[in-house]
Amino acid sequence: MHQLVEQAINDRRYLHQHPELSGKEFETSKFIQKRLDDLGIETLNYEPPSVIGFLKGTKGDKTIALRADIDALPITEEGDKSYISQISGVAHACGHDGHTAILLAVAKWMSENQNEMEPNVMFIFQTSEEVIPSGAEHLVKLGVIDQVDAVFGLHLWQGMEKGKIGLAHGPMMASTDDFEIIIEGAGGHGSMPHETVDPIYVASHIVQGLQSIVSRKTDPMQAKVITVSQIESGSGYNIIPSSAKLQGTVRAFNLETTELIRSKMQQIVEGICGSFDAIGKLNYMKGTPPLINDSEQSHFVENVIRTSFGDDVFELVDPVMSGEDFSNYLLKKPGAFIFVGMNGEKSSYPHHHPRFDIDEDVFASSIELFINVIRNFN
Amino acid sequence: MHQLVEQAINDRRYLHQHPELSGKEFETSKFIQKRLDDLGIETLNYEPPSVIGFLKGTKGDKTIALRADIDALPITEEGDKSYISQISGVAHACGHDGHTAILLAVAKWMSENQNEMEPNVMFIFQTSEEVIPSGAEHLVKLGVIDQVDAVFGLHLWQGMEKGKIGLAHGPMMASTDDFEIIIEGAGGHGSMPHETVDPIYVASHIVQGLQSIVSRKTDPMQAKVITVSQIESGSGYNIIPSSAKLQGTVRAFNLETTELIRSKMQQIVEGICGSFDAIGKLNYMKGTPPLINDSEQSHFVENVIRTSFGDDVFELVDPVMSGEDFSNYLLKKPGAFIFVGMNGEKSSYPHHHPRFDIDEDVFASSIELFINVIRNFN
Amino acid sequence: MHQLVEQAINDRRYLHQHPELSGKEFETSKFIQKRLDDLGIETLNYEPPSVIGFLKGTKGDKTIALRADIDALPITEEGDKSYISQISGVAHACGHDGHTAILLAVAKWMSENQNEMEPNVMFIFQTSEEVIPSGAEHLVKLGVIDQVDAVFGLHLWQGMEKGKIGLAHGPMMASTDDFEIIIEGAGGHGSMPHETVDPIYVASHIVQGLQSIVSRKTDPMQAKVITVSQIESGSGYNIIPSSAKLQGTVRAFNLETTELIRSKMQQIVEGICGSFDAIGKLNYMKGTPPLINDSEQSHFVENVIRTSFGDDVFELVDPVMSGEDFSNYLLKKPGAFIFVGMNGEKSSYPHHHPRFDIDEDVFASSIELFINVIRNFN
Amino acid sequence: MHQLVEQAINDRRYLHQHPELSGKEFETSKFIQKRLDDLGIETLNYEPPSVIGFLKGTKGDKTIALRADIDALPITEEGDKSYISQISGVAHACGHDGHTAILLAVAKWMSENQNEMEPNVMFIFQTSEEVIPSGAEHLVKLGVIDQVDAVFGLHLWQGMEKGKIGLAHGPMMASTDDFEIIIEGAGGHGSMPHETVDPIYVASHIVQGLQSIVSRKTDPMQAKVITVSQIESGSGYNIIPSSAKLQGTVRAFNLETTELIRSKMQQIVEGICGSFDAIGKLNYMKGTPPLINDSEQSHFVENVIRTSFGDDVFELVDPVMSGEDFSNYLLKKPGAFIFVGMNGEKSSYPHHHPRFDIDEDVFASSIELFINVIRNFN
Repeated sequence: MHQLVEQAINDRRYLHQHPELSGKEFETSKFIQKRLDDLGIETLNYEPPSVIGFLKGTKGDKTIALRADIDALPITEEGDKSYISQISGVAHACGHDGHTAILLAVAKWMSENQNEMEPNVMFIFQTSEEVIPSGAEHLVKLGVIDQVDAVFGLHLWQGMEKGKIGLAHGPMMASTDDFEIIIEGAGGHGSMPHETVDPIYVASHIVQGLQSIVSRKTDPMQAKVITVSQIESGSGYNIIPSSAKLQGTVRAFNLETTELIRSKMQQIVEGICGSFDAIGKLNYMKGTPPLINDSEQSHFVENVIRTSFGDDVFELVDPVMSGEDFSNYLLKKPGAFIFVGMNGEKSSYPHHHPRFDIDEDVFASSIELFINVIRNFN
Repeated sequence: MHQLVEQAINDRRYLHQHPELSGKEFETSKFIQKRLDDLGIETLNYEPPSVIGFLKGTKGDKTIALRADIDALPITEEGDKSYISQISGVAHACGHDGHTAILLAVAKWMSENQNEMEPNVMFIFQTSEEVIPSGAEHLVKLGVIDQVDAVFGLHLWQGMEKGKIGLAHGPMMASTDDFEIIIEGAGGHGSMPHETVDPIYVASHIVQGLQSIVSRKTDPMQAKVITVSQIESGSGYNIIPSSAKLQGTVRAFNLETTELIRSKMQQIVEGICGSFDAIGKLNYMKGTPPLINDSEQSHFVENVIRTSFGDDVFELVDPVMSGEDFSNYLLKKPGAFIFVGMNGEKSSYPHHHPRFDIDEDVFASSIELFINVIRNFN
Repeated sequence: MHQLVEQAINDRRYLHQHPELSGKEFETSKFIQKRLDDLGIETLNYEPPSVIGFLKGTKGDKTIALRADIDALPITEEGDKSYISQISGVAHACGHDGHTAILLAVAKWMSENQNEMEPNVMFIFQTSEEVIPSGAEHLVKLGVIDQVDAVFGLHLWQGMEKGKIGLAHGPMMASTDDFEIIIEGAGGHGSMPHETVDPIYVASHIVQGLQSIVSRKTDPMQAKVITVSQIESGSGYNIIPSSAKLQGTVRAFNLETTELIRSKMQQIVEGICGSFDAIGKLNYMKGTPPLINDSEQSHFVENVIRTSFGDDVFELVDPVMSGEDFSNYLLKKPGAFIFVGMNGEKSSYPHHHPRFDIDEDVFASSIELFINVIRNFN
Repeated sequence: MHQLVEQAINDRRYLHQHPELSGKEFETSKFIQKRLDDLGIETLNYEPPSVIGFLKGTKGDKTIALRADIDALPITEEGDKSYISQISGVAHACGHDGHTAILLAVAKWMSENQNEMEPNVMFIFQTSEEVIPSGAEHLVKLGVIDQVDAVFGLHLWQGMEKGKIGLAHGPMMASTDDFEIIIEGAGGHGSMPHETVDPIYVASHIVQGLQSIVSRKTDPMQAKVITVSQIESGSGYNIIPSSAKLQGTVRAFNLETTELIRSKMQQIVEGICGSFDAIGKLNYMKGTPPLINDSEQSHFVENVIRTSFGDDVFELVDPVMSGEDFSNYLLKKPGAFIFVGMNGEKSSYPHHHPRFDIDEDVFASSIELFINVIRNFN
C-alpha cells in the first residue's frame, strides 16, 4: 500500500502541474494510456480524451466500473506549492488530479491481484465533468457501461471532515439545470410608458413569481432552488428598452421536481408576459441530473467502509446542492458515489478556490476503499 | 330676492328634517309637486319620484334644463341643528336639500317673470344621484332632455372657498366605476401549499399588477385611480382558502381611459391567475361617466358669473376625483355643471360627514346665478 | 393477546361514542382512572384530566414512559358506524380513542407481567393534544417525565399503508407556529390614495416578501412552509381601509429554522411597512415544536419492529409537515414516536375528516409493539 | 418680411450644415457674433459659446429677453437634403438651427426698427439645451436675466399641426430628473441563496414599489412618470451577484411633486433593501425643472397670436412629458414658451430622428410673432 500511495502522490502532483481544460485533456489522456499500457491493462476503444481500461476477474460474470474524472478548471492557481500549476489560467482546483491518481493506483493493484478478484473491473478515466455537455452523459450514450453491473466513484470532499468517509442512501447531490428567459416588450421614450411595453417591470413580476414555485408549487419536503443570477436590460436613462434577459440555475433532487419546476416556469413566464403585453420565452437547459445512489449498492459501500475503517469513520451524508455528472451513470446502472472527507489543516480552501489543495493523507484510505469494493462485490 | 332666499331656507330646512333615501323620495316628490302646482307650473309626466316642471319662455325656440338632485344618504346625522334630521339613519349630508330649495326658488322667480324670459325652462328634480343605477342616467334614457338645448346644474361645494363660484371648461369630475375580482384557487392544508392553489398569493400579484395600469399602461397626462379597497380570503391559521375576493373603484376623466383600464384589468386578472393555476373573474361595473362640461356653455356660464358677481368671484376649477351623475346629461346635451363654494366657518365638515352642514348664505348667489343663466341664454 | 385486543376494541368504541374536547376529557379521565385502579396500577398525583399510571419493574433502575393522547375534535361525525359519536359536534376523528385503548391494553398486560419486566413503566394518558397550549408541554413543565429515561408514543396513521410500522431517525413531524400580522395604514376615499396609506397594497408586498424567506433566506435542505391563510381588509368599494390583517402558519423541522423565519418575518413586515408609511406588527405564536426522534431510541424501536414483525413491516418514515405535541417530551428526554400504518380498505378517510375511522385490525401489532419495547428496553 | 425670411432660411441652412455639439458651439457662436456686430447690436460680456445681444428701446424702462438655443445632437443625419450636415455624427435634429436663424432675423428687424419699439430687447443665443448641466441654468446663475422683465422663447414643434401656434397657461413641459439605484447584496453560489443577499430579488421589489409612488403616493391630478429604464446585475448562471444597478428617469410638472417622488424613492429603496438584508443607495440627479408659463405673460402671448394670425391659429397646448431648459428662465422671471406647429407633409419625422427636418414655411409667422411680442409688450 505504501508504494501505491507514493505513486499516487507522484502522479497527482505531475497532473497538478499539467492541468487541462474539459474536453482538451489530451496530454492527461496519453499519460493515463501509457500507465495502463505499462500495467498490461487493455483499453477499450472509446472516444478520447476519455480512457477506458478493463481487467477480467476470476469469476468474470459481473463487471464493476470505477470512475475518475480528469479535467481541470479555468482558474489561475495561487499559493506556493512546489507542484503548482505550470499552465496560467488552468488549475486542478477541484481534486480531479487526486481522483485520477487514486484510480491509477487501484488499477496497478488490480493488475497485480487480478487472479484473486472475482469481478471484472472497468477503469473509467472520464473527460469533461465540469461542463455541459457532460463527459459522463456522453460516455453513457456511447454505451460504455452497457455491460457493467455496478458503477462506483468518489470525490475528495471539503464538505466532510478528514477521517470520515460516507455517502447517502438515495439522493446525494442536486441536479443542475440552467435557464434563460427573454422578455420581448416594446421600447420607447422613458416619459411615455403607455406607448411601450416595459420589459423591466414585467421582469420584476417574473423574478418574484418564479420564487413561488419553490415556496408554493413544489413539495416542501423536496429541497430545490431557483436562482435568477443575471438580469440585463436597457442602456440609458430615458429609453425604455425593448427586451430584458434573465438567466439562472435550478437545483433539485429528482427529475419529477425539475420537470415540475420547468413547466411552472414556462407557465409563469408566459402568463405574466401575457398579462402585460409582452412575449416571454423560456429556454430551459437540462444539465446534470440529480445524483441518487442506489440503495442496495450504497448499503454495500457503507458496509465496506464500516468493515474496512471502523464504524466511526462512516458518515451518513446529507444531500448537498452542488452537482456531479456521475449522476448520469446512476441513471443507467446501480452504483454509489462516495465522499472522502479531507477538510482539515492541510485542506482548508473550498473547491474551485484559487488556493484549493488536496490533503494527500486520504489517498491511502481512498485506494483501500476501492480495493475493498472490488474484493467484496458479488 | 330676499323673499326667494327666505323661502329657500325654509324649504331646505323642512327637507333637511325629512330626508329620504335614493329611489324612495316620495314625500319629497309630493312636496315639490305641490309647490310647482301652486306656482302654476306644468309638470311633465315622467316616472316618480323625479318631478319635471316646465315653463314656456317668450321666444320659446330654445329650452334649457336646470337640475336639482333630491335624495339623502344612509347616514345618522350628528350635532344640534334646530332642523336636524327626524329620520334616524337618513340625512341630507351632501347638500341636495339645498339644491332642491334653490331650484324651487328659481322656479318661483321664473313663474313670476315668465313674460320677460326668452327660453323655455325645464326644472328637473331628480331622484337617485347617490346610487347606481343613477337617476340621471334613467331620466336621460326616458328621453326627458331630448328636446332640451342645454342643461345646467350646480353643487354647493365644500372643496371651494365661500364667496367663489366656478367650473372647468372640460373634464371636471371623474367617472366612478366599481369592480369585483374573484380568484378561484384550490384550498387545502396550510402545510401543503403544493397541493393547493393559494388565492392569497395570487391576489398579491394582482394587487400589484393593477397599479401598473395607472403607472405604465395609461397616458400619464390622463388622471386616473385604481383602488383595491377590499380584500377577503380565508378563515383560519392552517387552511389555505379556495378563493379570494377583491373589490374596488376606478376613476378617470374620459371613457377611452376607463375602457382601456377595464380591458387591461381583464388581461392582468386572467394572465396572472393563469400563471399560478387559478381562475380569475373580473366583474367590472360601469358607474357614473366622467363629468365633462361643454366648453361653449361653460364659457357662457363663466361670463354670467363674472358679469353677475365680479371677476374675483369666478374660479377656474381643477378637476376633482369624485363623481356626479349629472355627467349623464352632458353625454347627451351641451351644458355645464357649476360649483358654488361654501367652505368657511359655517360649513367646515366634508360632504357625507355626519356633521356636514350647508352655509345658507350662498343661496342668494346660487339663485341669482340660475336666474342669470336663464336671462342670458340664447 | 386476543383478549387484550378484544378489550381494546371495546374500550375504543366506548370512548368513540363518548368523545370530549381538549381540556374537558373528565369522563374519559374517570374511565381511565377506574381501569388503572381495577388493575392495581398506582396513579401519580398530577393535574386532571390527564392520568398518569406507574408500575415498577423488576430491575427498576430505569423508567420508560408510554403515552396516549385522549382528546377528541370539534367535528360532527358522519356515517353509520354502530359506535358513532353520541355527542353532536364532537368526534374522535384523529384516532386518540384508539391510542388510549391500546395503552390501556398494554397497561393490563404489564400489570399481569410486572414480575418479568425490568424497567419501570409510566403510562401517560394526556389531555389536549389538539390545541395550544398543549397538554404535553404542560405535563413536561409539571415535571411528569423528570425521572423518566425514555418516552415512546405511537399514532395510528393514515399516511402509511396498513401492515407497515415505522419511524424516522431524527426529524419526523414539523413544528407548527401561527402568526398574525397587522398593517396599520391610514384610511380615506378610494379616489384619493395619496392622502391615505393603503394597507392592501402594502399587504401585497408582504405576502410576496414572506415567501422569499422560504425560497431565498433559509437553507433549501431544511424543509419549511410559510402560509398566509387569511387576509382581511376593507368593507366597501370607495373607502381605502385603515388597516389589514393577515394570519397564517409556519412549519419547519428545527427550532433554529423557525427562529430564523420569525426574525426574517419581523424584518420584512417592518421594512416593507416602513417603505410605504405603514406600521406593521407581527404577532408570532410559538406552537408545537418539531418532533425529532432520538436516533439511539429510534434505532432501538426499528430493531424491535424488525424483530417482532419482520423486516418487511418496517418503513423508514419521511418527515411529514403535520405536527404532534409529543415533540415536547422529546425536547426533554430521549425517545421515539412511531407511526402504525392503517391506510387501506377499512380506513380510507384522512385524519380530521367527518368520516374518518380507525382500522382496529392494527391494534394487535400496536399492543405487541409497546410490549416489546418494554421487554427489550435496557 | 420676405427678406427677413430669406435670410433666416439661408442662415438656418448654413447652421444645419455646420452643427456643433452642446458646449462646443464655438463656430456657431462666431457666426452669431459677426451677425450681431454687422447689425450694430451690442453684445454683453458673458461666457461663450453663448452670445447675448442687447438693443435699447425708446422707452427703455422695461427689458424683454428673446431666447434661441444653438446646439445640435450626436446623431448622424440621414436623407438627401442639399444642406445636409457636413459633420458626421452631429446633426441639428431638433430644430435649434431654425430657432437661431429666426432670432437673428428678429434681431435684424429690431435693429432697423429700434426707434419705434418701446422695450429694450435682449437676444439670448444659448448653448447646451440638450444636456445636463443646462446652458439656461448656467446663464441664469450668471445673472444674465437679472435685469429682464420678461423672457420669451419658441420651439418649432412636431407635436402641433402646421398653421397652429400656441402655448399653455401654466405647466407646459415636464421636469426631467434622472436617478441611479445601487443595491448592495452579498454574492455567492446560485445553489446557496440563504448564504447570500440576492440583489436581483430585492431589485424586483424595488421596481414594483417605485411604481406605487405614481399610482398611490402622489396626487392623481398631477401627471408624472417614474421609469426604470436600465437594470444590470450578474454575469453567470450559477453565481448570485453581489450588487444590482438600476437607472431611470422621473418626469413631473411641479417641483413639489418631484421632491415628493425623490423622498418616497429614498424611503422605498432603503425600506425594501432593509427588509431583505441589502443596502440601497439612491442617487437622484436633478435635471431640467418643469416648464411653467407665467399666466399673465402667456395670456399676453395668446392675445398676440390671436391678433396677429386670427383666432383659428391659436391652440391651447396640453402639457407634454418632454422637457426644455427654458424652464430655468421661468423659475427666475415671468415669461412664456411657445410652440410653433409644423407637423405636415414637409416635416413628418419626430424630433431627434435622423431624418427630422424643419418646415421653413413657418419661419415667417415665427419672426412676426416675436416682432409683435416686442411691439405689444408693456
